[in-house]
Amino acid sequence: MTVTAARGFLASGVAAGIKESGDPDLALVVNQGPSRAAAGVFTSNRVQAAPVRWSRRMLADRRLSAVVLNSGGANACTGPAGTEDTRLMAERTARAVGADAHDVAVCSTGLIGVPLPMDRVTAGIDTAAGRLSADGGEDAAVAIRTTDSVHKTAVAPRSGWTVGGMAKGAGMLAPGLATMLVVLTTDAEADGPALDSALRAAVRTTFDRVDSDGCMSTNDTVLLLSSGASGVAPDDKEFAEAVHAVCLDLARQLVADAEGASKEIEVAVVGAASEEDAVTVGRSVARNNLLKCALHGEDPNWGRVLSAIGTTDADFDPDRLDVAINGVWVCRDGAAAEPRDKADLSGRRVTVTVDLRSGNDSAVIWTNDLTAEYVHENSAYSS
Amino acid sequence: MTVTAARGFLASGVAAGIKESGDPDLALVVNQGPSRAAAGVFTSNRVQAAPVRWSRRMLADRRLSAVVLNSGGANACTGPAGTEDTRLMAERTARAVGADAHDVAVCSTGLIGVPLPMDRVTAGIDTAAGRLSADGGEDAAVAIRTTDSVHKTAVAPRSGWTVGGMAKGAGMLAPGLATMLVVLTTDAEADGPALDSALRAAVRTTFDRVDSDGCMSTNDTVLLLSSGASGVAPDDKEFAEAVHAVCLDLARQLVADAEGASKEIEVAVVGAASEEDAVTVGRSVARNNLLKCALHGEDPNWGRVLSAIGTTDADFDPDRLDVAINGVWVCRDGAAAEPRDKADLSGRRVTVTVDLRSGNDSAVIWTNDLTAEYVHENSAYSS
Repeated sequence: MTVTAARGFLASGVAAGIKESGDPDLALVVNQGPSRAAAGVFTSNRVQAAPVRWSRRMLADRRLSAVVLNSGGANACTGPAGTEDTRLMAERTARAVGADAHDVAVCSTGLIGVPLPMDRVTAGIDTAAGRLSADGGEDAAVAIRTTDSVHKTAVAPRSGWTVGGMAKGAGMLAPGLATMLVVLTTDAEADGPALDSALRAAVRTTFDRVDSDGCMSTNDTVLLLSSGASGVAPDDKEFAEAVHAVCLDLARQLVADAEGASKEIEVAVVGAASEEDAVTVGRSVARNNLLKCALHGEDPNWGRVLSAIGTTDADFDPDRLDVAINGVWVCRDGAAAEPRDKADLSGRRVTVTVDLRSGNDSAVIWTNDLTAEYVHENSAYSS
Repeated sequence: MTVTAARGFLASGVAAGIKESGDPDLALVVNQGPSRAAAGVFTSNRVQAAPVRWSRRMLADRRLSAVVLNSGGANACTGPAGTEDTRLMAERTARAVGADAHDVAVCSTGLIGVPLPMDRVTAGIDTAAGRLSADGGEDAAVAIRTTDSVHKTAVAPRSGWTVGGMAKGAGMLAPGLATMLVVLTTDAEADGPALDSALRAAVRTTFDRVDSDGCMSTNDTVLLLSSGASGVAPDDKEFAEAVHAVCLDLARQLVADAEGASKEIEVAVVGAASEEDAVTVGRSVARNNLLKCALHGEDPNWGRVLSAIGTTDADFDPDRLDVAINGVWVCRDGAAAEPRDKADLSGRRVTVTVDLRSGNDSAVIWTNDLTAEYVHENSAYSS
């Protein structure tokens, strides 16, 4: 159901032949209204793909009728021709679904620097438009996969209205979003500013706290479209909570499916003087390659945690740092405490808790271990 | 010869039994004078090992008679007991070589969070003191190895005076130094401030530009001791050049021996608006795990270079970025240019050149590829 869980939306996913494998690679999501309100959050990378530049501009009026998405090519770093290709995708979609091209967002994912095979893309858009359906959410979610091993969807049903969504992303996950395309839909009545504020708040503590490998993509896009078809206008808090729930669910699915990972690692920083400090420390720990290798080897190497904390400017006293790994306080006051072999790391989920003992703020960053499979997958990606 | 290439220095290296393997693990370097001038640069990690805290304090008067170094244990995150152990190492060394403990620097490297076996350490200091010799430089360089596959030494002979040195480090190499211990010696006449300024200038553009895996150690130390035994006082520029030459030689040896690496990667950033911009961009590229995997797979994936540049706040226009890989301009104006298969990555050395086209400043960062062996070595390190 996903993007078609909320009323007023049609979707489809087809194999347009962009991917050599013949797997599905093109998706459409269409908002039938009555409302066309929308909001979007994009990569903070300064090198931005043509579709990101286009969609950001088209969203200035907080209105979208449709989204066209393709996997199999990022259309990033493709020069003026890439910009033209994005415009053609929007125009072809607009024609096929009866919308204005300025109300069509474009999302692309795949290899950087390679032009899209536009004849296949445009034919694929026409095919996808012919298959639009109120049950097409799963097909759309499947078609946006790149190295994802599973498609990712989530839904938050509320009384009389719904938020649903789909996501792709399996690497290059980092703050300021990831190689991550997310489309959320809702039939709740909410105007552009309300959508924007709920989406930004949700992204800040979900997708933006996923840091799989410290690499930030050129194509990240999270869109939220409202059809208003439920006729229900939830209050702001209730609506924000539902958007957050779907974002969190999808973000966790991204971490669970990160390229080559064997562990899902939650870095929980508590006792911070500010939320910013907690996020800074969490990211530094989550990005430490040596720690990620150690956790892969099921070694509760808290020294590498301290070493990562020490590179930050957060408020803490090195002699008052506490670290727990899967609940065992292996480090207290900056030195060894409970025996490290008490920490059982045999499961897939690992929690690293850092107590900065400098305040009451906290944050969680999600990451993965570093594995030989990650190296293999990312050495072979484009060949 | 290394630390004993310059006149006025004795050194030794012994197996004290700190390492379970029985390999050499304790070294002494003694300055016989007439001068005892010295300078030091330490890790910028805020979590600092006891020996770093000690040596930094002892160097406040810019004077050292001896350095005691051990591998097999970092004495980091070891609490008040670790501080006491460092003091005992300095005192035992002072007694054994006839110096004041306040003129003895201590350097430790190895696992974090584990106390040193002090009975073996102190006995080892006595043994090492008995073996001090003007030919002991190699033995000392061998004894400070951890996962280093070779010992690292360098020497810059000048007319009538010499700068020599030894280094260890094979991972966790990052700005603000690395898990890196370096001792440099000279028989040139140079006072503390002159040593300090030559050392800082050299470290800034050598060891500080090595970024093997983005991880910063708790123990990094670079020391420079002058005996003045040559009776020659070179001018500042000449002296700084020799110190820089030895540091550069040792830094390149560290990169060449980085844990599990199969490629030595030089990221050269040119056309930058400032040296700071060039360093920022170089580091971001050098730390990009996806690029490091691609280069390991001999894939000239310039899209990942652009994606890394885009995460920085350096001065550049995304549509005017040029990237060459091993001299082939695979990207011009932010898009594909020469065919990527023209870039031959089969050799061990890879150069990634980024032209920001925003000015005339430049910088070079040295790093390595990311390999399954790196993961393996760092998963198994403490087990």
